[in-house]
Amino acid sequence: MEAHYSSAPELCVSEWVNTEQPITLQSLRGKVVVVEVFQMLCPGCVSHGLPQAAQVADTFPREHVVVLGLHSVFEHHAVQGTREALRAFLHEYRFRFPVAIDAPSGRGLPQTMTAYHMQGTPTMLLIDRKGRLRAQLFGQMPDMSLGAQIAQLVHEDGNTSEHSGLTRACEETSNDCNQGSCTLK
Amino acid sequence: MEAHYSSAPELCVSEWVNTEQPITLQSLRGKVVVVEVFQMLCPGCVSHGLPQAAQVADTFPREHVVVLGLHSVFEHHAVQGTREALRAFLHEYRFRFPVAIDAPSGRGLPQTMTAYHMQGTPTMLLIDRKGRLRAQLFGQMPDMSLGAQIAQLVHEDGNTSEHSGLTRACEETSNDCNQGSCTLK
Amino acid sequence: MEAHYSSAPELCVSEWVNTEQPITLQSLRGKVVVVEVFQMLCPGCVSHGLPQAAQVADTFPREHVVVLGLHSVFEHHAVQGTREALRAFLHEYRFRFPVAIDAPSGRGLPQTMTAYHMQGTPTMLLIDRKGRLRAQLFGQMPDMSLGAQIAQLVHEDGNTSEHSGLTRACEETSNDCNQGSCTLK
Amino acid sequence: MEAHYSSAPELCVSEWVNTEQPITLQSLRGKVVVVEVFQMLCPGCVSHGLPQAAQVADTFPREHVVVLGLHSVFEHHAVQGTREALRAFLHEYRFRFPVAIDAPSGRGLPQTMTAYHMQGTPTMLLIDRKGRLRAQLFGQMPDMSLGAQIAQLVHEDGNTSEHSGLTRACEETSNDCNQGSCTLK
Repeated sequence: MEAHYSSAPELCVSEWVNTEQPITLQSLRGKVVVVEVFQMLCPGCVSHGLPQAAQVADTFPREHVVVLGLHSVFEHHAVQGTREALRAFLHEYRFRFPVAIDAPSGRGLPQTMTAYHMQGTPTMLLIDRKGRLRAQLFGQMPDMSLGAQIAQLVHEDGNTSEHSGLTRACEETSNDCNQGSCTLK
Repeated sequence: MEAHYSSAPELCVSEWVNTEQPITLQSLRGKVVVVEVFQMLCPGCVSHGLPQAAQVADTFPREHVVVLGLHSVFEHHAVQGTREALRAFLHEYRFRFPVAIDAPSGRGLPQTMTAYHMQGTPTMLLIDRKGRLRAQLFGQMPDMSLGAQIAQLVHEDGNTSEHSGLTRACEETSNDCNQGSCTLK
Repeated sequence: MEAHYSSAPELCVSEWVNTEQPITLQSLRGKVVVVEVFQMLCPGCVSHGLPQAAQVADTFPREHVVVLGLHSVFEHHAVQGTREALRAFLHEYRFRFPVAIDAPSGRGLPQTMTAYHMQGTPTMLLIDRKGRLRAQLFGQMPDMSLGAQIAQLVHEDGNTSEHSGLTRACEETSNDCNQGSCTLK
Repeated sequence: MEAHYSSAPELCVSEWVNTEQPITLQSLRGKVVVVEVFQMLCPGCVSHGLPQAAQVADTFPREHVVVLGLHSVFEHHAVQGTREALRAFLHEYRFRFPVAIDAPSGRGLPQTMTAYHMQGTPTMLLIDRKGRLRAQLFGQMPDMSLGAQIAQLVHEDGNTSEHSGLTRACEETSNDCNQGSCTLK
């Protein structure tokens, strides 16, 4: 008998940086997905969370593990909320993995952050090959332990034949959710 | 006989953060002044230069050594040039020393950066008690060596009776230079 | 089809510290075994290799992963070769996992070091649940990558029913090899 | 008016390593002397105190600041007390400054350690150009603060004309104290 894990809610995204095509969790079934949730003005994200995510991308082969960033702004919206500021930040720090901007909700917390009941940033989401949320880690975690957790997800049975209904958490006001990802115009 | 050192050009400042009153180098004669020149999107500034400046402020008594920041934006002006962005950054990183925004020149490099012929950020300026520029350090420097250099300036003869003509490097377009600091409106 | 891995040669041990009973690799079949090969006067072992081995012991549950130290002295024999010196070292540094003293050969390199054709210290051996040598890592390795490698060994099929003939590498002069471990008197 | 500082007791030394000639504090009058007191099996000494002392030697010119080590063994005498073990240790870690072995007293604590009422290792002694003990630092201290303290001693008035009677703390059983340093045969 196996533990029961919930399907990871789809990301609610207003814009993407470092990728030409929008990306959905749905489209990544069959791979392990690591999502680093951050704010560019969050010191722990800049010094620890994002470099660790970059190291995950360097350590595991891309056909097994995909690393995404999620810029979930819940404070100082005016100065870190823009795509231009985020692009400059990612460029200067040389973070090259795709980064989504968490769709604002008009109520402070952005939509994906709300859907996952996150406590703050940095938060790391580990999603298995069946699209299930296996770990949600707030704060810092040792590299060795993280490497071990991701490797476990890589090496376990990843048969994706079973149906795991897609969770829809993005707001109706999102006007382009028909591909699983909610893109605000 | 003593080595000849040039008077440190006055800072050209458009705005101040973390201080109620504008500050001039002229007003700090008699104290050693350490100026950390940075950009908020410069990784080496965030991880090394600014924390080191904060440590200087914690290590040396304020009656002898004053630490100032100088935000000298020469790239990504749109996203890191605003006072609001800088305030949010300093707040999140808990840098509490006064920080000046280097006055833009309309030609890419801001005015103070030009006046000091700086090579980039982070740069640290060490100014002695007579207002002379004693060291201009681009890049990283060991804490021990920096501590020794500052202590030397603290303990050497600081008789300020000699006249050291104030260097005026700020542009004429600065419309409030009459207190030594050039404040753009 | 599976890659072919060699059976890990048994450790040749003159004495044990931090354990009441001698330990053999043979007796650990079914578990992943991590062996940190070190010298107490090797700086890279003290600052990196041994703390990393201790972190492995803290990260993985003992029923799956066993961490051993192997003190393989190949220089300065007189001052780091004794059990008393090793005990004092392990006590002061609080390394609590079992540590074997690699049996001297009378020809400079100790016996286990020779059997594994090691290049020096620190070296880490990763032995799978079937007793096969899966990795032999000389020098430093990132925690994340090591955590991933060990986790892979933990989660792969560990059926030990197949016979993997025990490799006997210890010298005949060892006068107590009948339990797999060669204990010099 | 000046604070009163005591003359630093002379070192009681049984043997020297990394120097051809025995060294006395008396002979170093006119220079600032930094003494790193350590044990080779003390983790904080190996990871912090000794590398910091080596950095002092690299940072300050030798004509102003002299760095000495003092191996003050107060536990595990049998395994770290020998000159041969100490030499191997210093060689492997590449510590090249002169190191004295603190003369044993036959009562646990070695003689210099007793004379200075030290609390343990690592301890750093800062001795000014007049031979006075200006700081005795047990444990860790930030590089910046240490650099500043040493620079202060370098730059203050070092006129040594005043007599500061040599403190004799070494035991009478020391059979060669006539040059200020007590060398046990």
